[in-house]
Amino acid sequence: MLLRIDHIGIAVRNMAESNETFRRLLGEANYKVETVESEKVATSFFRIGESKIELLEATDPESPIAKYIEKRGEGIHHIAFEVDDIRAAIDYLEQVGFIPLNREPKRGADNKWVAFFHPKTCHGVLVEVCQTIA
Amino acid sequence: MLLRIDHIGIAVRNMAESNETFRRLLGEANYKVETVESEKVATSFFRIGESKIELLEATDPESPIAKYIEKRGEGIHHIAFEVDDIRAAIDYLEQVGFIPLNREPKRGADNKWVAFFHPKTCHGVLVEVCQTIA
Repeated sequence: MLLRIDHIGIAVRNMAESNETFRRLLGEANYKVETVESEKVATSFFRIGESKIELLEATDPESPIAKYIEKRGEGIHHIAFEVDDIRAAIDYLEQVGFIPLNREPKRGADNKWVAFFHPKTCHGVLVEVCQTIA
Repeated sequence: MLLRIDHIGIAVRNMAESNETFRRLLGEANYKVETVESEKVATSFFRIGESKIELLEATDPESPIAKYIEKRGEGIHHIAFEVDDIRAAIDYLEQVGFIPLNREPKRGADNKWVAFFHPKTCHGVLVEVCQTIA
């Protein structure tokens, strides 16, 4: 049901500096920037193999990313897995014990429907499933 | 130079429980377990697309994984990128500002040479590069 790692989300304080760091790391510049108003984050995407790195910078002190950084510092924030049927994936994962943070898919960055699952149900890992909007 | 995400390393307290959680998440059991004596960790690998999930459980209270969990709890510990020339990768990454934790490749799990880079040089992300041993 989970097809591949779509992306790894990384919480950063300063997008300009982080874009430069990840350009040096991955040897290629980001290919997309996008703000997700509902989540109060700016995003920046880099390609690596069949996956992506998504940098996340808060656009507001009330953003979940601002709170995350305040508590834990910068670093890896979530893993997102590509699925081809997000509603089926949410139902399946809930059935087998993962607690959805949103049962109704919501619109994320990069033209995706997304849903998150509580890290306490996955050994501290914030899991996202995402489906490309046709 | 970095070819793909080889794996995501996840620090866990209890391997048996975590194997079951990730089997439910990924829909398939782990395909390999291996202890890395030098790092004092037990590992367990799951396939997902071209990448893997590596669970890490401390085998000793002095293990870096035990210390990590004590400080930050369970969760995502590192991202590993496959390279085809680990010495060239270490040289390049050091040149562009990443601080190696080991300049000399060391033997990791899953038949790999591995090197790590300090998270403070990558916005809180512990980066590993790894090369399959021919």
